[in-house]
Amino acid sequence: MMRIYADNAATTKLSPAALAAMTPYLTECFGNPSSLYGEGQRAKEAVEDARMRVARCIHAAPREITFTSGGSEADNQAILTAAAIGRKAGKRHIISDPVEHHAVLHTLKALEEEGFTVEYLPMYENGVVKAEDLDQMIRDDTCLVTVMTANNEIGTIQPVRELGAVCRMRGVLFHTDAVQAVGHVPLDVEADMIDLLSASAHKFHGPKGTGFLFTRTGIRLEPLIRGGAQERGKRAGTENVAGIVGMAKALEDAVASMDENGKKLTALRDRLIRGLSEIPHSALNGDPEKRLPSNVNFCFEGIEGESLLLYLDDHGVAASSGSACTSGSLDPSHVLLAIGRPHDVAHGSLRLSLGEDATEEEADYLIETVKEAVNYLRSFSPVWRDLQAGKRMYIL
Amino acid sequence: MMRIYADNAATTKLSPAALAAMTPYLTECFGNPSSLYGEGQRAKEAVEDARMRVARCIHAAPREITFTSGGSEADNQAILTAAAIGRKAGKRHIISDPVEHHAVLHTLKALEEEGFTVEYLPMYENGVVKAEDLDQMIRDDTCLVTVMTANNEIGTIQPVRELGAVCRMRGVLFHTDAVQAVGHVPLDVEADMIDLLSASAHKFHGPKGTGFLFTRTGIRLEPLIRGGAQERGKRAGTENVAGIVGMAKALEDAVASMDENGKKLTALRDRLIRGLSEIPHSALNGDPEKRLPSNVNFCFEGIEGESLLLYLDDHGVAASSGSACTSGSLDPSHVLLAIGRPHDVAHGSLRLSLGEDATEEEADYLIETVKEAVNYLRSFSPVWRDLQAGKRMYIL
Repeated sequence: MMRIYADNAATTKLSPAALAAMTPYLTECFGNPSSLYGEGQRAKEAVEDARMRVARCIHAAPREITFTSGGSEADNQAILTAAAIGRKAGKRHIISDPVEHHAVLHTLKALEEEGFTVEYLPMYENGVVKAEDLDQMIRDDTCLVTVMTANNEIGTIQPVRELGAVCRMRGVLFHTDAVQAVGHVPLDVEADMIDLLSASAHKFHGPKGTGFLFTRTGIRLEPLIRGGAQERGKRAGTENVAGIVGMAKALEDAVASMDENGKKLTALRDRLIRGLSEIPHSALNGDPEKRLPSNVNFCFEGIEGESLLLYLDDHGVAASSGSACTSGSLDPSHVLLAIGRPHDVAHGSLRLSLGEDATEEEADYLIETVKEAVNYLRSFSPVWRDLQAGKRMYIL
Repeated sequence: MMRIYADNAATTKLSPAALAAMTPYLTECFGNPSSLYGEGQRAKEAVEDARMRVARCIHAAPREITFTSGGSEADNQAILTAAAIGRKAGKRHIISDPVEHHAVLHTLKALEEEGFTVEYLPMYENGVVKAEDLDQMIRDDTCLVTVMTANNEIGTIQPVRELGAVCRMRGVLFHTDAVQAVGHVPLDVEADMIDLLSASAHKFHGPKGTGFLFTRTGIRLEPLIRGGAQERGKRAGTENVAGIVGMAKALEDAVASMDENGKKLTALRDRLIRGLSEIPHSALNGDPEKRLPSNVNFCFEGIEGESLLLYLDDHGVAASSGSACTSGSLDPSHVLLAIGRPHDVAHGSLRLSLGEDATEEEADYLIETVKEAVNYLRSFSPVWRDLQAGKRMYIL
């Protein structure tokens, strides 16, 4: 049986090239980059070389890149940094939006307990926020706007450059959780007027356990992990040299093939969307165009997402209902609720996120398998029976 | 020329067995442990299996182990957790000691800015704290005692069990930074009455970028990195599966050969101490017996530590003057100052930390090379000339 890994938004396979780049640092070149002797200096050079490469990929300067253990750490540190700066200036108002990742939302919740006020941008059915809403919401005491570049569940791409322009004009720090976007869609921290940006290696075929935080020159980064003087005193702990080197290699490769992969994936994505749209009482979640080339997210009425995933797993497809970080939770996705899907429908969601090696044959297999799965699960769904019998109103 | 890596306190080489255990998770088994389908569940099983193995090595329960990005993160989280618990109970007094790692000291400094009072145990010439001092210093509002198991510079082993007993008796949380100790000397969180313990994989031949925090059942861990529900909501971010698996393998192997390696290293260490003691105007730093089997730390009067390291590097020896985390800093070691070494002498320090594969031949090469180095550097040291000419008093 075919096996298709269609959950690249949850994690990606480490690329062989990235692993090859890492291997010396997992074997002979094991020095501590802080050490003065040869082994240490070679490790340090590798870290600094990686910093330069990563910086170049997002049009930043090397000194603006801080290596972290991943996207969540970078999100936490970025937001706490902006809050620390705001606190000193007597500014305790933050603007975000309701479809952010929990690494952002939970950090904001913690800041609310410390006396910050957090307001959320209006959300629309397509999952895209509006820069004009932001312009209206910014106050004199706003210290941070944090809006993700691309959504991890529904793949929606936010108008980052417009949001950045509003923030720059109004003198407010702008952070974007770009975990789903880096390596997948073009990003330019200069042109996009981004002040803080979070990324995670394992979302672009780098290793798990490493990520980075871009911090524009002039912004004083607040340490989240205190201790040694690594990362110019902004992130303590011996550097994960192999991870950092692997991340840089994976990112460079992702950026180099971004155009080509983007075109190919967009075609496959739209093929999937067309195919799955044929399923009655289904709906695409998120904007059909302003979305990641790899992301397809549907709601199917009358079924449970978890049953759908188990059926698909049994039939050769690895997919998810939404964020991996909250799977296992019984609550429906906060993202789907925010774009207006009712509870019942939000439970019946499916996210397919394609890898760069996906083929038309695989896309067609996905369409057929999902169609069969939905039919099968509906065949013994009491909700579906009620809908068919007219005892309940269809929502989709 | 011989090349001897004698800086295992800074970092160790990843063991081939740990790398072999990691390899599947760097290649085919790349799933996200939070995902429901097969790939994810296999990754989850690997993480939970590693948790069980790690727990067993320190006599803990699996649910008491939280995986982190390393020792510094674990130290920060442990201390902030105890502070949060203390704050709720109106207790804002913390006891530590002056030779802790900066991951502890800088976190305590940050808490002082938030209104906590931190007091430091008296330090003695041998670098060992006393449980009776602790007993006298504990107050009704003491919420935490944090004392490292073994010092990263001078290798001194603290009387953890006695300290733990005092804390348990007095109802105060006890954290120990065991980064240098785990995998090297026996540790039993139950018998040692430890409430919170930090460890780092790359100090025991595991990979960089991973570590763990032991938290006794009943202590509510405060997240440092907020976001997804990984690690039971106490540490967000996709798990570094390969790193975690590698850490568990390395730790099991280290514990299995601890007795044998300890005996062998202790003999080599004492051979080194005897040999280096022949250098005039030198002194061993730290206790000669209550010290890690791998650690040798000397001060040599009339030389600069950095010149010594560069000479040794040129002559086939990788060693350090103290903590890797602060090398490059011009300040003398806070540890050496705390045990009473004057500034001038503290600058001329050398730490040799042996690996388990060290040989007598290597130990003898180290002794000879250090002797030559000290002689050579003293031959054009103005300080040494002044000492020899009687214009300055010898300290050692």
